[in-house]
Amino acid sequence: MVRTVEVPEVVILRLPLYLRALKHLQNLGRDPVSSQELGRLLQMTPAQIRKDLSYFGRFGKQGRGYDTKYLLKELRLILGLKKRWNVCVVGAGRLGQAIIGYPGFIPEGFKVVAVFDTDPSITGRVFDHTRVRPMTALADTITRLRISIAIVAVPANQAQEVIDELVRCGIKAILNYTPFSPQVPGNVKVRTIDPVLSLQSMTHYLKAPLEER
Amino acid sequence: MVRTVEVPEVVILRLPLYLRALKHLQNLGRDPVSSQELGRLLQMTPAQIRKDLSYFGRFGKQGRGYDTKYLLKELRLILGLKKRWNVCVVGAGRLGQAIIGYPGFIPEGFKVVAVFDTDPSITGRVFDHTRVRPMTALADTITRLRISIAIVAVPANQAQEVIDELVRCGIKAILNYTPFSPQVPGNVKVRTIDPVLSLQSMTHYLKAPLEER
Repeated sequence: MVRTVEVPEVVILRLPLYLRALKHLQNLGRDPVSSQELGRLLQMTPAQIRKDLSYFGRFGKQGRGYDTKYLLKELRLILGLKKRWNVCVVGAGRLGQAIIGYPGFIPEGFKVVAVFDTDPSITGRVFDHTRVRPMTALADTITRLRISIAIVAVPANQAQEVIDELVRCGIKAILNYTPFSPQVPGNVKVRTIDPVLSLQSMTHYLKAPLEER
Repeated sequence: MVRTVEVPEVVILRLPLYLRALKHLQNLGRDPVSSQELGRLLQMTPAQIRKDLSYFGRFGKQGRGYDTKYLLKELRLILGLKKRWNVCVVGAGRLGQAIIGYPGFIPEGFKVVAVFDTDPSITGRVFDHTRVRPMTALADTITRLRISIAIVAVPANQAQEVIDELVRCGIKAILNYTPFSPQVPGNVKVRTIDPVLSLQSMTHYLKAPLEER
């Protein structure tokens, strides 16, 4: 039985990292894997990894590590990755077009099935086999194509309006590419792709000679 | 005195989040701020926040919290954000063009000063006041424009080659937009913008009704 209640969101945020690290270790033939190996790869303490995974039951055996294949399967189950998720993209400008053509989604089970834009000079055009629909088609298309996740790639000043509309259409998971933190109801998840945070985590190392480890 | 030695990289990765949360709390007029307030905003334990910040000296007073303005100033110093950083973008396709036009960089002190592409049909074109240069101009331009950071937005199968070239040119910080983990020397930092990890951290909540908190 997988428990989904009262798991802190930070733990859920780390599970995709565990999944990726495990796939990497599986490709290297590591089975079982120890929390030490995972920790080295992810720069985390083994104790933190064991604690995070313990929310979902007992995966490892004392002193033997984790069964790689089994843990991968369970993580996919916990993360809801056993099914294919239909995704829409709102905003078909340069960024939206790049997202539509992103090759990393399909292998991981995410399929962009619809694209929307307000601009009449863009609607009707086809990018990567996907025709851009007008925003007026949003509600109907989301229902008909069973879309669960929306990716928002509109200008920052349109982001809140678009996200409000997506929430009205029943969308509960939003990947936000705008440099803006939208307001959403408590039952809607938003993740923001924020390149500035990534840049700011590297400049520390540029300002002074990097210490050898 | 700011110590920069032996701080775990995961701590450095969290500092930009603290910076952002502190700016938000400062805008709300919160001064001082407690590790509890920061923790609520970031979904972290106050103990973790206090431990992370303790690497850099004593910022808070027992029972009084942190001086918001002072902590912001110190975090900017630790992260090397007191100066403006020149950035280049490699790859001027749809994604590269979107990155060049991204409005979130300039307010945070990151300036795209050069753009490169191998495709002769793209080099010479101008996007957001920046002319696309051929890759042959990489080494010279990086030196002349004092570029410290590179953003890579090329197709995945060109990523390693481009990153090798950037490393040869002395670049020590790379923001990688390809769904690919490049190999780099130990003194080069890479952060990968990975929308799949963000999507995978939301599907957990879609697969079952979300518990009210």
